[in-house]
Amino acid sequence: MATIVLHSINRTAQTSARKCFIQYSKGASTVESHLAFFHNTSIRRLTSFPAARWAPKVRFMSYGISGKTEPARTKRGALLFAGAAATVAGIVTGVIHFQRAEMASVSPKAGEEDMEIAAKCKTFMCPPCTDVKVLQQKKGEMCSRMEMLIMETQAEFCRALEEVDGGKFKVDRWERKEGGGGISCVLQDGKVFEKAGVNVSVVFGDLTEEAAKQMRSRGKVLKGKDGKLPFCAMGVSSVIHPKNPHIPTVHFNYRYFEIEEEDGTKQWWFGGGTDLTPTYINKGDSVHFHNVLKEACDKHHPQYYPDFKKWCDRYFFIRHRGETRGIGGIFFDDLDSPSQEEAFSFVKSCAKTVVPCYLPIVYKHLNDTFSPEEKDWQQVRRGRYVEFNLVYDRGVKFGLATPGSRIESILMSLPLTAKWEYMHEPPKGTKEAEMLELLRSPKDWV
Amino acid sequence: MATIVLHSINRTAQTSARKCFIQYSKGASTVESHLAFFHNTSIRRLTSFPAARWAPKVRFMSYGISGKTEPARTKRGALLFAGAAATVAGIVTGVIHFQRAEMASVSPKAGEEDMEIAAKCKTFMCPPCTDVKVLQQKKGEMCSRMEMLIMETQAEFCRALEEVDGGKFKVDRWERKEGGGGISCVLQDGKVFEKAGVNVSVVFGDLTEEAAKQMRSRGKVLKGKDGKLPFCAMGVSSVIHPKNPHIPTVHFNYRYFEIEEEDGTKQWWFGGGTDLTPTYINKGDSVHFHNVLKEACDKHHPQYYPDFKKWCDRYFFIRHRGETRGIGGIFFDDLDSPSQEEAFSFVKSCAKTVVPCYLPIVYKHLNDTFSPEEKDWQQVRRGRYVEFNLVYDRGVKFGLATPGSRIESILMSLPLTAKWEYMHEPPKGTKEAEMLELLRSPKDWV
Repeated sequence: MATIVLHSINRTAQTSARKCFIQYSKGASTVESHLAFFHNTSIRRLTSFPAARWAPKVRFMSYGISGKTEPARTKRGALLFAGAAATVAGIVTGVIHFQRAEMASVSPKAGEEDMEIAAKCKTFMCPPCTDVKVLQQKKGEMCSRMEMLIMETQAEFCRALEEVDGGKFKVDRWERKEGGGGISCVLQDGKVFEKAGVNVSVVFGDLTEEAAKQMRSRGKVLKGKDGKLPFCAMGVSSVIHPKNPHIPTVHFNYRYFEIEEEDGTKQWWFGGGTDLTPTYINKGDSVHFHNVLKEACDKHHPQYYPDFKKWCDRYFFIRHRGETRGIGGIFFDDLDSPSQEEAFSFVKSCAKTVVPCYLPIVYKHLNDTFSPEEKDWQQVRRGRYVEFNLVYDRGVKFGLATPGSRIESILMSLPLTAKWEYMHEPPKGTKEAEMLELLRSPKDWV
Repeated sequence: MATIVLHSINRTAQTSARKCFIQYSKGASTVESHLAFFHNTSIRRLTSFPAARWAPKVRFMSYGISGKTEPARTKRGALLFAGAAATVAGIVTGVIHFQRAEMASVSPKAGEEDMEIAAKCKTFMCPPCTDVKVLQQKKGEMCSRMEMLIMETQAEFCRALEEVDGGKFKVDRWERKEGGGGISCVLQDGKVFEKAGVNVSVVFGDLTEEAAKQMRSRGKVLKGKDGKLPFCAMGVSSVIHPKNPHIPTVHFNYRYFEIEEEDGTKQWWFGGGTDLTPTYINKGDSVHFHNVLKEACDKHHPQYYPDFKKWCDRYFFIRHRGETRGIGGIFFDDLDSPSQEEAFSFVKSCAKTVVPCYLPIVYKHLNDTFSPEEKDWQQVRRGRYVEFNLVYDRGVKFGLATPGSRIESILMSLPLTAKWEYMHEPPKGTKEAEMLELLRSPKDWV
């Protein structure tokens, strides 16, 4: 059964990831060994669609098309779901080899699928934003599938962080007056983490005239019914600020946007990325982090990693400082190709890397000692993090400017504490100067 | 002699201010008594120009006109300078009564004036941005007079802060590749002040096409010579973050902008303001602060204080929080009426209030004890200060987006330390809740 197959892949990955942490913290020989579990579950693919569609240029939005233009996808039922399951297992286009197609080809019964969704929902941090019955009824629709993915990602990441910290996430469920809501999980002042936030939001409603105009100015004329453009936007996002300056800050965000035109045509696109912000550079950590991301990208297209890595370096750039925020990772937006299934499959692969990207690094440095000077440098770097988030981050800017946004969830990304020292410039030859040098000229890690 | 008269007025004000600190810290009976020195030196005026020109709407720029349209002002010589001196002493228009006109009417010799400028420059934190000889040669021009004022304001404020703190300001002189430069004075981690910054900048050059376009879109067509629009912008700005949460943060900024068109016509305007950001509300402090500002405004026009007070509350508003940054003060921009002399005279009055506005409050709370919880609340409020400065402050945004800006001087306004606690909401009935309530609905203090 499709969802069971996926679930069991995840479990395997998780178990392997835990093994991997142990290996890593014991100083296992190579980065490759830490990533072994990925090879076990990966479904290698090669596609030949043009790279131009997702080429890294900082556009705000572009659109994929589903709905009327691809009628099969808007239909409910076993056909679609079997199709989705098959796609996830790597059947649809350009597959070189795959391992679990037989399992995916076993057609599941609708009742079993519904039970499976219900069972999955019980493993989440709290019930999903959308009612479980609605998720079951609309299980074939991308909005439902993406919501399941982001809820799952939130739960997996929170549990992994709780395991290492010993603390518990505070779970806040909130509703948006205009439609939808979210679940914010925050662990503040823990043993390991100063502030860890993992946020899910699922919002919908009609686009305002201003937002519609903004889209039109981007070259897309969207025809609304009676001037209204129903939309749905969802995503999981997280920023983790550890206490120990030798454990880096991590950020990830995976999101989906859908907008319905007058004739029922749906414009859609995905976006996201994962990036690392160390206080001090550690080559092993950097190589591990980028390798895990590259591996996930390579399963979908050989150009994804190099292009999205560059896009990440360009996006997380604090222009007025002439520095990147951290050592990057991947970043993409407007992903609406080669197909909705393929794009979703890629986003899912990315979401599944969050734990194996980061947790091994946390475990590795868990007991590293640090000096007050090292803590101080961390605080200065946190100040830069705040500068990026408040001055440049499009998500934060959009959120702060949008009426009805939940400010606490948007600004959850800010560190618990930060520092601004006038004219702070580390002396030449220090570890701090080395770090700064790296942020001024990003390098390739894999 | 004109400049001597002005200087001696300042000295009187300073001495009175010091007396006033002592009275204030001893708990003198009324706020009025703290302001007594103002009455001693004030030159009361009533003017009848229309208030519409400086009405508080948040426009970025509008323009006064000097140069060809007011040829007398562009000429060098005793006539102009005597005129300027007379204006400052309250002679030009609508004067009800004045005290020092006799002194101002004594025509000074050019050599003495130059010596006076040279002597004044020696009291500054360091030599002014513009060469002293140039300031002497162009002593009648507004750019020179404003530079003298901002340098003097910087020095007066820094000395007053050094006196209370015991520490010394670090003085950084910097140059701007494109033209001009500045002087940044920073006292960091002092006994009283966590971070105190007082910055002067005097920049000039040709306006870029982008900037010129921005101006045209505001309804002003500016004709440049060969497409170039020479401009000069200068100002003094300061943010003081004390350690003790019972001593409020203060901010002020006074600035002048001048742009020359093809035919030699000069567009000019002034802007500025002073505002207070307490961590805990203290009614006496708030009344004192606003009273000093009102007194300075009332000398020039009865509508200045009420209008600029409202403008301040509107400007320093953290929209996404639904809170003002602090308890306000005054704020104005685009001031180009009723005449350049009058506008300068008003700005000078404002600049002269900086010390008497703030220092009495510092002295009053110098030895207040505070708890870790009170320090914590201060840190949370500092986080909000950072949010305002990075998200909304037009000066910061303009600075960060302008190539060649000195970032360290722009971000000098950020506190040394700040905090972001998730979902921080003080319990009802606490002092913190009382403060928050006040920030959510600004009140009148005088």
